Parts: sequence; C-alpha cells; structure tokens
Amino acid sequence: MKVKTAGCIIIGNEILTGKTKDSNMSYLAIELFKSGIDLIEARHVRDIEQDIVSAVLELSKKYDYVFTSGGIGPTHDDITTQSIAKAFNADVYLDEKAHAILKEYYGDALNEARLKMAKIPYGAELIFNHVTQAPGFYIKNVYVMAGVPKIFHAMLGEVLPKLQKGSIISSISEIFHLPEADIAKSLGKIAYNYAKDGVDIGSYPKIEGDSWILEIVVRSRDINLAESVMNEIKASFAEIKPSFDKKDLMSLL
Amino acid sequence: MKVKTAGCIIIGNEILTGKTKDSNMSYLAIELFKSGIDLIEARHVRDIEQDIVSAVLELSKKYDYVFTSGGIGPTHDDITTQSIAKAFNADVYLDEKAHAILKEYYGDALNEARLKMAKIPYGAELIFNHVTQAPGFYIKNVYVMAGVPKIFHAMLGEVLPKLQKGSIISSISEIFHLPEADIAKSLGKIAYNYAKDGVDIGSYPKIEGDSWILEIVVRSRDINLAESVMNEIKASFAEIKPSFDKKDLMSLL
Repeated sequence: MKVKTAGCIIIGNEILTGKTKDSNMSYLAIELFKSGIDLIEARHVRDIEQDIVSAVLELSKKYDYVFTSGGIGPTHDDITTQSIAKAFNADVYLDEKAHAILKEYYGDALNEARLKMAKIPYGAELIFNHVTQAPGFYIKNVYVMAGVPKIFHAMLGEVLPKLQKGSIISSISEIFHLPEADIAKSLGKIAYNYAKDGVDIGSYPKIEGDSWILEIVVRSRDINLAESVMNEIKASFAEIKPSFDKKDLMSLL
Repeated sequence: MKVKTAGCIIIGNEILTGKTKDSNMSYLAIELFKSGIDLIEARHVRDIEQDIVSAVLELSKKYDYVFTSGGIGPTHDDITTQSIAKAFNADVYLDEKAHAILKEYYGDALNEARLKMAKIPYGAELIFNHVTQAPGFYIKNVYVMAGVPKIFHAMLGEVLPKLQKGSIISSISEIFHLPEADIAKSLGKIAYNYAKDGVDIGSYPKIEGDSWILEIVVRSRDINLAESVMNEIKASFAEIKPSFDKKDLMSLL
C-alpha cells in the first residue's frame, strides 16, 4: 500500500505575531501519525490572499491531503474561503445544505455575516461541525477547517474516517542518561543500516529543570523491526562509558 | 524606515510526527514582534536534506532574515549544517574559534561527534551559546540555531541585538461578549477604512471552558492611531444589540 502524505497550512496573523499559540498543527500531527498518514510539511501564513493562494497551490500539488486551519468565520479577516476559491479558479456560492443548517440554528439572527459561513467554492463539499454548526469544506484534496481548536478537532473527526490511510507507524522510545555525542557513532551506524528498511531513528536531548535526558525514538511501519532495532540500540549503548557523569546542561551534547 | 521581514524554519521529524510540540516558533514570533521585525511565514520540515535546502533557498530570497531551529547537534539525524551548506554551495570546515570553545570545555572528551558541532559552512559566522557552549552560526541572512528551547532562546538573545529593527508595532486588545457575526459589518468597515494606514484589525473568538469570548486586536506602528481605532471600534459596538445573549458554544460565531 502506497503511503499517503499530507501538508498543513495554519492561517492567521495572530499566530505569526505571537499573540496566539497554535495548537492545531501538533494535534493534526498526532492524529495523522495515528492514522498512518505522513505529515511532511506545515506552514504558517498570514491572512493575506496571495500568501494563502501560494501555499495552497504548492502543497496541494506536493501532497495527497492538505489541511488548513483558520480564517473561515464571519469577520473581515476571515479570507480563507475566498483565497481557496481563487487558488482553484472557482467562484463562491451559497450552499443550500449549509444555508439550511445555519437557518435552523440561527433563525432570525441569520444575518449577512453568518450567511458568509454558508458560502463555499463550486466543487467543494461540506465538512460538518457539531460544535458550532457552521461547516468547513473540502475541495479537491484540500480540507478547510476552523482555527478554534475545539471546532478544528470536531471537523478533523468528521474528515479522518473518510481518508485513505496507511499502515500505522510504530514509535518506540527510551530515555537514557548519556550525552548525545557519546552515542552518536554507535547510533549513526545502526540508523544507517536500517534506513533502507524505512526505519527512522531520532535522538532528542531534552532539558528537564536543571538536568537533562536523552530520548531515543525508533519509528517503523513494522513493529517487530522497531523493537529489534531498539534492542540493538540498547545493547550497543550498554558498552558505552559516558564522557561525563554530570547531569548538568553543559554535558547535554 | 523600511520594515524588516523574517521567515522561520522549524526542522525535525519529531515535530511533524507529533512526538514533540514545538515552542520555538511562537517564542520567535513574540521576540520579533517586540523588535519590530515582521514574521511573515514559518515552515516545519523534516530532517531531510532536500526539504531543508528548498525551504532555506526560498525563504532566504523572500525575507530579510531567516531563523532555523533544530538539527545542529552531534548525532546522525542532525543534518541542518550540511543542508544549509549545500543550499549555499559552500563546503563545511572546522572553525578554529568553535574548536577552541569545545576543546576548553570538553577536554579529552572532545570526540569526533562533538567536533561535528564546530564545523560550519565557509562564509558563516558563529552564534555563541552560554548554555551548552556548542555554537550556532549565520550565513548570509540565515540564522541557524539549536532546537532545544533553552539553547534556542540563548542563541536568539545573541542574535537579536545585532539585527536592524523596525519601529515597534503596538498591539491593543479588548474582550467583548458579542457573537462574532454581530460585529462583523461594523468592524469590517473600520478595518477597511484604516487598512491604507497600516492598521491591522483581528477578531478572535475563543472558547473558555463551556463559554466563549471575542477578542478584538488592533495592531499599528502608530500607538495613538491604534488607540483611536480601538475607541472607534468600542463606540460602534456599543450600539449593537447581540443576536444571542447565551454564552454557549453555539453562539460563538
């Protein structure tokens, strides 16, 4: 089975000015990982039509699926729908189903601004949302979802079951108290030997308070292989005498 | 004074698989905002040479400054230095100053893996780091820094004072309890009127527990203008009768 790939576009000035911390990208990364879909690239862009258009066109060509977050609400700074429409040379129209959903909920309060949330590009299909009713949509391979995390989660929950998934990647991790440089040679050899089998080995030094740990992660679509590679890593580390036994920050690497 | 622009590249498989949450991008966004440098775009890419090379080449052409995070340690998955060198067609050499720094700290423990951290592309200059000593570097307009947050912060602290900054953007925000759609028309008009003066107005509905708030943000390099625009917004909202007085999630938009 061919592995499916994905890209992600987080849209919004508030993220790039540091005003708001995005959490949707890492949520998406975890959900895609669990689904066996490989997230290859993520981009953060401003609420500027040309920036959104370029990112959508580039990523939708490169990857099987593209997920966007943000900019589909009722205010002036919500320009994602029109930008996606422009990217695909499609006009925007008032979708009947979306209109009905909003009419049922809002009744007389369905003003012009709310009606904007029922407009999608020709060729698009709705993504339903049980949290606030206003739908997202997908067009070709681009899934256009809200930025508010609870709504993003709900929309992704609607979308994911319908996608073609790959075999799940197993991820095994172990914590060590060796400086990264001491295990580099041994780990590099093992990583090189198994790269052709699609095994990805990562080495992540992390600071915890004033001390540090080293996390080694083995990822593979074959769980037995991942386990045997991790065992080989542990055996090779057992012979290593650490160049530092201090656990301070200076001996992290 | 011409405004300086920036791009950001977060490098690492661990981010794109959701294993690790990146915090460097939002830290950088805040620091650049405080410095008056506009962060225009951020990308997350894998530890794959071609992916890093493409991102570096594209962003270094588009923006005044590019900041990278991750992949400059001693292990096999740290391929940022070689990738940046490849992007700029430069060979990598053992920098004397970096070598001396590492030698002084590590002494006899300065093995081949640690020596890798003293190698930088020709034409690069060091970025010092008082946390773990191993330096980052910059080449042309690309600032190559570590992924471990404490080290990234230290390196950015070395770099920022040396950059050309713009006038600081003032950001004024107010919380309202109106659904986003009710203020859309009034806010859209004001945003349209002041866009030519470089005023950026954002509208951010947020969920807090089971309730919600609406945050309006006005950003401008002229603080007096930002304040007067916010006053105009508040005055225009005062006349609005909310279509919902419920504060539940359904009336967020």
